Amino acid sequence: MVISLSQSYLCRMFDNTDRTELSAMGEFGLINHLAQHFSPSNPNTVMGIGDDCAVIDKGDHFALVTTEILQEGINFDLSFHPLKHLGYKAISMVISDIYAMNGLAEQVLVGIGLSNRFSLEAVEELYAGMQLACEHFGVDLVGGDTSTSRGGLLISLTAVGRVDKQKICYRKGAKESDLLVVTGDLGGAYMGLQILEREKKVFLEVPTMQPDIAQYDYIVGRQLRADARKDIIDQFNIMGIIPTSMIDVSDGVASELFHLAKASGVGFHVYEEKLPIDTQTVDTALAFDLNPSIVALNGGEDFELLFTLSQKDYESIKNMPDFTVIGHVTEQSGKNLLISKSGNQFDIKAQGWPDSQKD
Amino acid sequence: MVISLSQSYLCRMFDNTDRTELSAMGEFGLINHLAQHFSPSNPNTVMGIGDDCAVIDKGDHFALVTTEILQEGINFDLSFHPLKHLGYKAISMVISDIYAMNGLAEQVLVGIGLSNRFSLEAVEELYAGMQLACEHFGVDLVGGDTSTSRGGLLISLTAVGRVDKQKICYRKGAKESDLLVVTGDLGGAYMGLQILEREKKVFLEVPTMQPDIAQYDYIVGRQLRADARKDIIDQFNIMGIIPTSMIDVSDGVASELFHLAKASGVGFHVYEEKLPIDTQTVDTALAFDLNPSIVALNGGEDFELLFTLSQKDYESIKNMPDFTVIGHVTEQSGKNLLISKSGNQFDIKAQGWPDSQKD
Repeated sequence: MVISLSQSYLCRMFDNTDRTELSAMGEFGLINHLAQHFSPSNPNTVMGIGDDCAVIDKGDHFALVTTEILQEGINFDLSFHPLKHLGYKAISMVISDIYAMNGLAEQVLVGIGLSNRFSLEAVEELYAGMQLACEHFGVDLVGGDTSTSRGGLLISLTAVGRVDKQKICYRKGAKESDLLVVTGDLGGAYMGLQILEREKKVFLEVPTMQPDIAQYDYIVGRQLRADARKDIIDQFNIMGIIPTSMIDVSDGVASELFHLAKASGVGFHVYEEKLPIDTQTVDTALAFDLNPSIVALNGGEDFELLFTLSQKDYESIKNMPDFTVIGHVTEQSGKNLLISKSGNQFDIKAQGWPDSQKD
Repeated sequence: MVISLSQSYLCRMFDNTDRTELSAMGEFGLINHLAQHFSPSNPNTVMGIGDDCAVIDKGDHFALVTTEILQEGINFDLSFHPLKHLGYKAISMVISDIYAMNGLAEQVLVGIGLSNRFSLEAVEELYAGMQLACEHFGVDLVGGDTSTSRGGLLISLTAVGRVDKQKICYRKGAKESDLLVVTGDLGGAYMGLQILEREKKVFLEVPTMQPDIAQYDYIVGRQLRADARKDIIDQFNIMGIIPTSMIDVSDGVASELFHLAKASGVGFHVYEEKLPIDTQTVDTALAFDLNPSIVALNGGEDFELLFTLSQKDYESIKNMPDFTVIGHVTEQSGKNLLISKSGNQFDIKAQGWPDSQKD
């Protein structure tokens, strides 16, 4: 690269000539576009861009590495998100990507950007939540970076984990007639966010009004804290089960199905009546005039695991309360259908999760 | 952790009671304060917080992991920093920490936060610079994260590398009477920044004025691009040299000496007349009425390597133009002295590098 300062100095990168708007590409379009320029050259790079983690060959096992950025005002709202809960959730979020590949997280690195609005006590709250999560999940916080921030709180996270070579689950392994299984229940974190934003609005309009959220404890907890499903990976190991493909539910099931279908070259049939939804999520969705099934399919941040399983493994999981078979894999590449309770079929669109909770 | 929403809801984390200002702690103070709560529990965590990288035992070698956040308006100024150069520099900066432990970088993950001010073409420029750096240093870009940003450009970087167990260099290995050696020359990146900021100011005041920076090509290049010293690690391997301690010069030699001294429990004598300073750096410093030696000691972002070496290795390096012996290790723990050209002694204070280039 020749440095040509006379041309580039005080350059105008933001003029309007020959300008392609990023909004026209979407997040996944942008990643795919940029990824095409990068092809791994190191022999130990097993998987680069395109799955929940990068995969690196370490001889007798694979190392898994993943990274995430959380920004105040985009990924969280400190007016209702206690810092301790946020610290716990941040660790959960990044290690969830390690579990999504059937691995176990071992180390995390955390970078934070802070404005002078934050006191030491506030930062300690944040790290107390991280510490709780690290202890709960058996993960070591081993480094990071601190810097100032011009705006709100910024958290960058990196997780490192490991997986046995024969146990790794990519997005790409789903096969026709495999079962589609999800852990836990869906849509709770999204409805919890709706409650918190509604109560915030009420509070800002009538500050004397005390928020009434006790009846929403489950879904509000799903939004504020989040628990990555390490317990599921432990169960897989005990039961000797290896999913054929897997992803974590961060952007919503519809969006994750899109990734699994694309990577595996398959399609999915999902049965509306099978979707696991907590009664609190159902009741709240109805009160907000939302269809609970749509909430379950498109709500993000549940951090459950969505995976495909060979039919031969059905006997092992059928009585496990944490697992719900919600559909199966079809050969129709990229065609993801919801079979409604009345038997109608609808295309499942990957709406993704709006990057801004404010949108 | 019990979620107690009634207390924490719409909590006021930023009130003024019992508030400790972060500015009272300093960056290193804050890191040390937070680090005390985290002690590694995984047997393969060899080194957590406290060196350039986290160190993870991978059986026949150590894996090295490090992370960095770069924010527009704090770490770079896009009014004079071409995006392609910035992409190159960002990769250099993060892998420099891998070299600082005598390792080789193999993979990087890059997260970016973008506002709608950025076009696809602008993002492509940034990634073109990253790609050049990846090719130059033999590193694979294997993943990351994209998100929106409320303010300026945000770049989070993670680098993964490896080092032979017997070759790893920590900050903590410096021993009395070891030589203190630095690669390349010092202070150039800092003086380059002074030139760029001066010319920006002139340009903003008199937009018809063309910046005259051709005569500053070396130092301006040092600031805008930066090259991590992989070549030095390759030389160490060829020559069979293993430094006793090492760090990269990101915050300035004075600050790095503080870290080496603290980790190793030693002190340093640095000889002013030995400091390697390019003539362009000297001339520019004098034109700015700055002492070139102070610039060399405190200027950041040179991304050279600063290391200690057993005296028995002196013969191997004495004729290598890339290495300059600038002093030696003393037993006086934490006492870092500059021996001036006139023979006087001055305490070297770790001023660090202002987080904001604007300060």
